[in-house]
Formats: sequence, C-alpha cells, structure tokens
Amino acid sequence: MTPPDPTASAYRNAGVDLDASDETMARVEDAVTATYTQQVLSGVGAFGGLFDAGALKTMDAPVLVASTDGVGTKTKVAAALGRFDTLGHDLVNHCVNDLLVQGARPLFFLDYVASARLEPAPTAALIAGVAAGCRAHGIPLLGGETAEMPGVYEAGEFDLVGTLVGVVERSRIITGEAVRESDHIVGLPSGGLQTNGFSLARRVLAGRYAETLGDTTVGDTLLAPHRSFLEMVTPLLDAGLIRGMAHITGGGLPGNLPRVLPDGLGAEVTVNWPVPEIFGLIGAAGVARKEMFQVFNMGVGFVLIAAPQDAADICRRLPEAFEVGRVVSGAGVRVS
Amino acid sequence: MTPPDPTASAYRNAGVDLDASDETMARVEDAVTATYTQQVLSGVGAFGGLFDAGALKTMDAPVLVASTDGVGTKTKVAAALGRFDTLGHDLVNHCVNDLLVQGARPLFFLDYVASARLEPAPTAALIAGVAAGCRAHGIPLLGGETAEMPGVYEAGEFDLVGTLVGVVERSRIITGEAVRESDHIVGLPSGGLQTNGFSLARRVLAGRYAETLGDTTVGDTLLAPHRSFLEMVTPLLDAGLIRGMAHITGGGLPGNLPRVLPDGLGAEVTVNWPVPEIFGLIGAAGVARKEMFQVFNMGVGFVLIAAPQDAADICRRLPEAFEVGRVVSGAGVRVS
Repeated sequence: MTPPDPTASAYRNAGVDLDASDETMARVEDAVTATYTQQVLSGVGAFGGLFDAGALKTMDAPVLVASTDGVGTKTKVAAALGRFDTLGHDLVNHCVNDLLVQGARPLFFLDYVASARLEPAPTAALIAGVAAGCRAHGIPLLGGETAEMPGVYEAGEFDLVGTLVGVVERSRIITGEAVRESDHIVGLPSGGLQTNGFSLARRVLAGRYAETLGDTTVGDTLLAPHRSFLEMVTPLLDAGLIRGMAHITGGGLPGNLPRVLPDGLGAEVTVNWPVPEIFGLIGAAGVARKEMFQVFNMGVGFVLIAAPQDAADICRRLPEAFEVGRVVSGAGVRVS
Repeated sequence: MTPPDPTASAYRNAGVDLDASDETMARVEDAVTATYTQQVLSGVGAFGGLFDAGALKTMDAPVLVASTDGVGTKTKVAAALGRFDTLGHDLVNHCVNDLLVQGARPLFFLDYVASARLEPAPTAALIAGVAAGCRAHGIPLLGGETAEMPGVYEAGEFDLVGTLVGVVERSRIITGEAVRESDHIVGLPSGGLQTNGFSLARRVLAGRYAETLGDTTVGDTLLAPHRSFLEMVTPLLDAGLIRGMAHITGGGLPGNLPRVLPDGLGAEVTVNWPVPEIFGLIGAAGVARKEMFQVFNMGVGFVLIAAPQDAADICRRLPEAFEVGRVVSGAGVRVS
C-alpha cells in the first residue's frame, strides 16, 4: 500500500481541512517532515503519531515526563505585529525548559493551533515555527491539530498550545531535595519576557510597539524568543553539579524558586545582574518593583542551585551565568 | 522535604493562578489526584508530570503513539446550555479512539483549558470531566494547563484541548495494509455527533436547543458524549480479528474510511443501520444528504474492517455492531 500521508492527516481536524494542495501548506508539510527522526514510524498510520520507543528499553528505569503549555497572550503581540514565525520556537523552548527542570530530555512534540478562521499564511508560519523549534532540539513534531472555531476566538486572534513528552532515568530525576542551606543560586539570562507576563506588559505598553528600544523596537523586544536552556544545562547535569533547578515562568523568582526548595528553606536574591531594558520600560510605565518581580523573570530565565564550589564551577563553564543569591533557612524568597 | 503539590502546580500558568484554597479548585485537585495510578511519580517534581515507564521495558518493541485534539465548537453548545461536566469525557474518549485505530492503548493524558476569564465553577467542571474520562480508562491526568487570555477568546467562550500518549507493540500496529477486497466493514454506533460537525449543526439548529427530541432535548442530544470504543475493541484485537479500523470524525465515513484502505481499494457503504434522530432533524433543517455524510458520522462512531467470517464473529460478539458495507476494488467511498 501507499501509506497515508501522516503530515496531512495529522493536521486535519473537525472544523477545517487546511488545503494540502495549497503551496503554503505544502511548505508546512515539508517543515514538519523535516523534523522526523528515524524514531518516527511515518506512514504506518495517520490517526496518531508513532514514535519508536525501543531506546527506552536500554534504560534502567525510564520515566516519561510530559508538559502541556501555551504562549499566553504573547499571541496578541504577534498578531498586532503580524509576525507569526517566532511563537512556535517560544512554545517548544518553554516546554523543553519545563522538562529540563526535572532532568529530562525531550522525545517528541505535538502542537495545536486554533482561531476563529485559520488564514493559511499565519497558520503555516506558526506551525513552521514549531517545526523549527523541534528541529533545533532534534525531536520530531509528531502530530498536531488545527481547529477553526468561529465564535470562540475573537477575530484575528488565535491560540497556540503544545505538548512535549520527554524521558529521564529515574535515578537522575532532579527533585530539589538535595538542596541545602547556603547553596548558591545561579541564574541563566532570559531572552526578555520569554512567554510570561504579557497581559500586564501589553496593558502598560499598548500603542508603543513601534517605539525604539536599544537597537530594535519595543514590539520586537517583546517578541524576543523564549530561550531553551537544554544545551547549556545538559553537561552540568552529566557532571553532577546541580541540586535543583527552576524555570522562571509566571510568578517570577518568588513564585518559581520555592517549587524546588525543601521545606524550611527559602532564598535570598540580590539583584546585581543586568536587568534587560524592557523591564525598566515596563517599570517606568507605572508597575511597582515588587509586582515586577512577581510577574516577570526580570532577566533570569532559569536557575540552577548548587553547592558553593559547584556554583563557581558552573559560572566558570558558562560565561553567561551569574550569581542570583543563596539558599537560606526559613521560607519564601526575599529580593533585595 | 514535603514534595510540592503536583496538582496545584500542574494547573498553575502564566495568566492566572486558580486559587487552590478555593473549595471548587480543591475538588478539582481531588478529582485529578483520583486519576493517579502507581505509575505517577507524584510529588517528586512539579514542572512536568512524571510517569514510570518501566513496563515498556517488558515489551518487545514499544512504540509510543500520541494525539492532540480538541472538541471543536461543541464548547459553544456546552456554554449555551451551561453544562460543562461532559466535554472532558468527550475529549478523552475522542483521543482514546484515535489511538485505538492503530492498536494502541492509552498511558496518560494532559489537558488545556483556556478562556478570556476562567470562572472557577465551569473550569472545575471541565477539568473534573477530563479526570472522570481518564479514570474510566484507568489512566492518570498527568498534567495540564489553564490559561486566561483576555482579548483572544470571546466573552463566555473557552477552548478545551487534550493530548493522549499511548503505547503499542510494534508487531501489533494496525495499519490497514492487511485489508483485502471483499472484506466486511462493521460499524459501532456513535453517541450522536460525538465531537464533529458542530459548526454546521449549530448553524441549522440555532435557538432550538430546548426543543424536545425523543425523551430528551435537542441541546442534550447534541451534548451526548463521544463514546470510547477501547473496551469493545480490545478483545477483538487480542483475538486477531481486525485488519483495519477508522475513527469516524470530521469528514464522516467518506473522509475517514479511505485513510485505512490500501491503494486501489474503496468502500461501498449501504445505509441500513438506524441513523440517530438528531441527524434526521439536521437534514430536515436543510442540509443535503451528501453533505450530511461528509460532515457527520451519521450514527457510525468507529468502523472495523475484517475478513467476512471474522466480521460475522465480531457481530456475534458485539450485539451493538452492524454491517456497514464492503471493501471493493477502485477508490473512494460510495454511500447508498
């Protein structure tokens, strides 16, 4: 038999069949197919994506890790600027970081794009962006769904959602329970807002997207991609340097650091890293410093918690890394 | 350490933290936790759900299968009727059927709920419905995301998306390539529209949800749950009776049957099963028969393709099953 085309079928859905004969969608199919690794058993079936998990048999105790996420109202900034090619990277990178916190590496990704009406060019750009994010991590975009939902989405708006499945050896799961008082907290720089705090940022920066900021614009700065920290962190994990990690998403440092701290421990954060200019602009627009830290990552995209000597080693290995603070007895996160 | 609460964290997100101290959300957490099997390594980390995949090591050649789907604008019927407890079942069952087509059994599920503003009670009902659908299949609701996206969703509307990950032994993947001319096509009755064709159905039935239909109403009939066929079909798979399967979703029989037919084969479908009354009502409202079959499942939720003697065996084993038609040489699906 000629196997059914897995790409076209994966993107079929209830509300709309994006016309696969359309040149734009043909490019999307090429982009999706380009993510396929030898693990993808393409063509043998089309209702769900098939991923050869034989490699898990070689692990001592494989644990699957999965996370579903969206990019929040960063979609509205993209729609306002008419730039749909970057959000897919954001989404993949966000999910990769969420799994990385537990020591897991990504296996495959699935996406979902929905709108009141799916215009081919933006939809294609969104999916191609997801595919590019997958390719950058060497993982397949195994499946996905596109849905046209008139009356559910506002005209011209859309949502972009993804699910990442990864794996970690059970003995190598990072829980944070190894974290001790006086451990150091090392930060890795974010690419800006990443994908959090956009409702607040848009409210205070409405109408200012075209303004110059540094050598770019406010709008382009807001759209700066969510960084993936996988490549940076993997060698540190392999070297056994890390006791705990946190992905600094909604809730900022005060909201995310406690998620990996053992009971009875808190953190003291001293802001002496370079806070990106976009946060200064948002603060100047009237958002109080305390709220800023509770909503935004403030330039810290990911944190690593390590014994003092290991933290110094991490900072030597990663020139971008900077000290963020210390683990202290007590609870909560104090920012000074 | 006291491990972080994986439920509360799984449902945190960028735009909103549903207040976990709220009684409604506490009930949701209970519902989600009630889905946890011994495979869920709860508490050891909160950024992604952890699933012990040790059982895959006992398989000869494990293949992971994954599918992301939504429930389309069935959400609008639910919103109009103020009934949010059934859609979660729909979503889980839809995904379970999509994986079943390839012979896979479900492992775990993740969900996504988004709205302009997340009202606690409807959101809780949606998630509790997903959890109930998971529990019915003995799989955990491993993670999820809730997102509040003002300006993206219309007021009072929402989207519900899910991802199911399952597994199948490579040698037991059903591709349809074993299907032969003269094989019989057996149908399993749908629960009504399942989750497809709602944009058309809503257009022609607008304002008629309160009308009586049989011993219920049009609205409740539209909301009838998407059936899961896993329990019915698994023994048939184990007995080696099935050569091909199709889940009859968007596109109806003509759109979905060809997805599992080898090149050079088509199908002749003879409509002598009882088409549910709701489709008669939609037809009477002015939708042509041909379009009906291209949009709706017309009462056939799932089809099994088998050698003639095996099809007879299937119909003996499953009193609900009925003959839908035959595999013929040629291409396409003829409905008479």
